[in-house]
Amino acid sequence: MSLSENNSPTALGIDFGGTTVKFGIVVGSEVIDSAPAIATDDYTEPAPLIDAIVRVVEDLRQRHPGITAIGAGVPGFVDFRTGTIHNLTNVRGWSNIALRDILHQRINLPVTVENDANCMAYAEWKQGAGKGKDHLVCITMGTGVGGGIITHGHMLRGAASVAGELGQTSIDYQGRKGAYGNLGALEDYIGNNEIAADARDYYATKGMNRSISDCTPAALSASASEGDETAVEIWGNIARKLATTAVNACWLLNPEAIVIGGGVAKAGDLLFEPLKKAINEQLSPAFSDHLEVIPAMFSNDAGIIGAAALALDEA
Amino acid sequence: MSLSENNSPTALGIDFGGTTVKFGIVVGSEVIDSAPAIATDDYTEPAPLIDAIVRVVEDLRQRHPGITAIGAGVPGFVDFRTGTIHNLTNVRGWSNIALRDILHQRINLPVTVENDANCMAYAEWKQGAGKGKDHLVCITMGTGVGGGIITHGHMLRGAASVAGELGQTSIDYQGRKGAYGNLGALEDYIGNNEIAADARDYYATKGMNRSISDCTPAALSASASEGDETAVEIWGNIARKLATTAVNACWLLNPEAIVIGGGVAKAGDLLFEPLKKAINEQLSPAFSDHLEVIPAMFSNDAGIIGAAALALDEA
Repeated sequence: MSLSENNSPTALGIDFGGTTVKFGIVVGSEVIDSAPAIATDDYTEPAPLIDAIVRVVEDLRQRHPGITAIGAGVPGFVDFRTGTIHNLTNVRGWSNIALRDILHQRINLPVTVENDANCMAYAEWKQGAGKGKDHLVCITMGTGVGGGIITHGHMLRGAASVAGELGQTSIDYQGRKGAYGNLGALEDYIGNNEIAADARDYYATKGMNRSISDCTPAALSASASEGDETAVEIWGNIARKLATTAVNACWLLNPEAIVIGGGVAKAGDLLFEPLKKAINEQLSPAFSDHLEVIPAMFSNDAGIIGAAALALDEA
Repeated sequence: MSLSENNSPTALGIDFGGTTVKFGIVVGSEVIDSAPAIATDDYTEPAPLIDAIVRVVEDLRQRHPGITAIGAGVPGFVDFRTGTIHNLTNVRGWSNIALRDILHQRINLPVTVENDANCMAYAEWKQGAGKGKDHLVCITMGTGVGGGIITHGHMLRGAASVAGELGQTSIDYQGRKGAYGNLGALEDYIGNNEIAADARDYYATKGMNRSISDCTPAALSASASEGDETAVEIWGNIARKLATTAVNACWLLNPEAIVIGGGVAKAGDLLFEPLKKAINEQLSPAFSDHLEVIPAMFSNDAGIIGAAALALDEA
């Protein structure tokens, strides 16, 4: 007998990413079952991809009839109140799609649709590293940089329900031009690809030739661990950029904790030690005295766990 | 018969600034009476200054016995919940002062103590340019740059009640070093004195000699109005820096409106036209479509009106 048949609240979490759609059956903070991911590249428009998603959901419901709600996290701007996707960053054709209503009509269960980084923040807040905090900032670092904010014990959503985009905030008013015309967006400095490109350039200034594949966050971590001082310096540079956005969030929101997750955060102390130092050097004690800077608890499953938890809480 | 004797809720607002402490009797959004300001420079420590404040308050209560609450706005970090001042930016000796409790014991009326910029934001939210908005960001520009934030219909205060410090947020991760070790703080670029110093330098790069007094915000406005193209460019530069912080606040908070006040905002269209342009160029329509960027309604009285309104609401 599976946990989901054991009267525990059970939800289906969907993590709609830039390249795949992943599925998990969630009980508490555990993913107790999953289904093969769908590759978004196989679909050029929303309707057939939604059909494929519905087929997977129906299969999972047959195995887990106790599912009471479905939560989906999606990579883009979402109006959480209506469940309508404004647009997705890296998936073609997804503009103004009322995903919540469509899935609800097809599946006949309560459905919530939320930004993917907000789902990760929700997981860390409800079940993870920031559990129980009333004032929390979560940053997730991967190809893009996303975020989610809890203030006064509630998820901060804002007027059109699109708040929490820490990766789009500027660290340099004269900086690089981003996807929305915004200058100096954090994401354009510490997204995976930007880290690699900047690291290659940094090695080059020291007369060292490195390929992009030598400069991925994982490769930089390995090099630093093997004693490459330049890689350590590069992690310090990444930390200082991330610290700027973290410090800005502190001045604005006065959180109890900043939770950092996503693939890049796997660098551990290489990132967190200079990050904590740079944050503490740039805040009044009124802000920093009770601030924690901590790694996320959840890894690849954070989006699925958060979407499912949100769905259960809202259902 | 004064309004305050006419059964309308009446409060005393105190605006504790870097150089003076000002007093006003407030009914609704009107300051119906006031008292001569106290110069803070005449006092080297808190106790005698508090004595002087209490004397003015007692005089005003004799004239307006209908006062039911007292609100004080102070220039520094305040724990609103306890009414304790962490520290004041430009006034000597004011660290860890339980101002609310001290005033309450001496005056025997409900007292609230809040950051001055939060008081200005409260005035604009309850009675002014942002009246009735559930998601609002206020920025006030003077010697320093302060702010206050409303999210989901409540003032955002944060874990230690010190949130909303927009002027301390960075616009350049490699920028000028500020009062708290923070790099590139907005205040260190568009505070009154920094505007004047940077403007003088900008004129110099064009081979023009200007004194600091030719470069104050008021002088720059006058010059621009008289056809000085360099002064117009300088306002554009100020607007782009302010826009960076405004855009960052939008990505994080997704407000309905940004209200800009304080002396520097008196530049009007010279500031607001390039500001609106720079903000709209740097946001997704999901954020900018319903965003207003508007001048504050209240001027020098904003702090008094907001402190009084807050005191009445909390009493």
